[in-house]
Amino acid sequence: MAEDFQLHERLAEDTVEVARWTLSRVLLMNDSHYPWLVLVPQRSGLRDFDDLAEADLPVMTGEILRASRLLKAAFRPDKMNVAALGNQVPQLHLHVIARFTADAAWPGPVWGVRPPEPYTPEALAERLALLRGAGA
Amino acid sequence: MAEDFQLHERLAEDTVEVARWTLSRVLLMNDSHYPWLVLVPQRSGLRDFDDLAEADLPVMTGEILRASRLLKAAFRPDKMNVAALGNQVPQLHLHVIARFTADAAWPGPVWGVRPPEPYTPEALAERLALLRGAGA
Repeated sequence: MAEDFQLHERLAEDTVEVARWTLSRVLLMNDSHYPWLVLVPQRSGLRDFDDLAEADLPVMTGEILRASRLLKAAFRPDKMNVAALGNQVPQLHLHVIARFTADAAWPGPVWGVRPPEPYTPEALAERLALLRGAGA
Repeated sequence: MAEDFQLHERLAEDTVEVARWTLSRVLLMNDSHYPWLVLVPQRSGLRDFDDLAEADLPVMTGEILRASRLLKAAFRPDKMNVAALGNQVPQLHLHVIARFTADAAWPGPVWGVRPPEPYTPEALAERLALLRGAGA
């Protein structure tokens, strides 16, 4: 399945790998403003959500729920945001973002609001451990 | 099922009803900048995507695909955006938006970029006929 799959270079630059699930590569957006996961189905040639194969749909849905629930468990956010936009990066990827009424973009969407603030190496290690401990 | 369901007043104000599907109320965002559907699962008490009942998930996914594919068929967009945000309206709703590289917000997300430009009555009637003809 994943033989042909190559993560888009822009996603590779902006994120850190957390895990590989059945369908998705699970990435942490390297922006400490928000607890923000990106799920990339490890299939080649997908752009839109509706490009997913029939057999992959329930798996994708299940992985979105898993990501959402683990962020909720780990961070107790006020709201979850889930989105497949992809206007700038053509490879299908799903954003799953824990939002807080006190965060940098609330109540707007997070995209393009603030320049990303990368994690320090220590904060990144801690964040990855927290996510993996919560089920990622 | 839908007995308890009440469409949130903000969604009712901002949209026009297109159809009622098995799970979702299908609404057209009254903003002529973008072909933009909003799917509202007719269940009470849902906020986040992961609040959907197990049994409703494949139905929701199928209706997202149906909305996305009918917008593609009707408008031949450059990209589809799908999102569950809900930072301002607490009732779970899914945006399915046809995007064009020449549209008012490209390549950013559409939310909050431009004040909505409501359809004229004629344009609205035409748009609803087009959507229903495309399978909504």
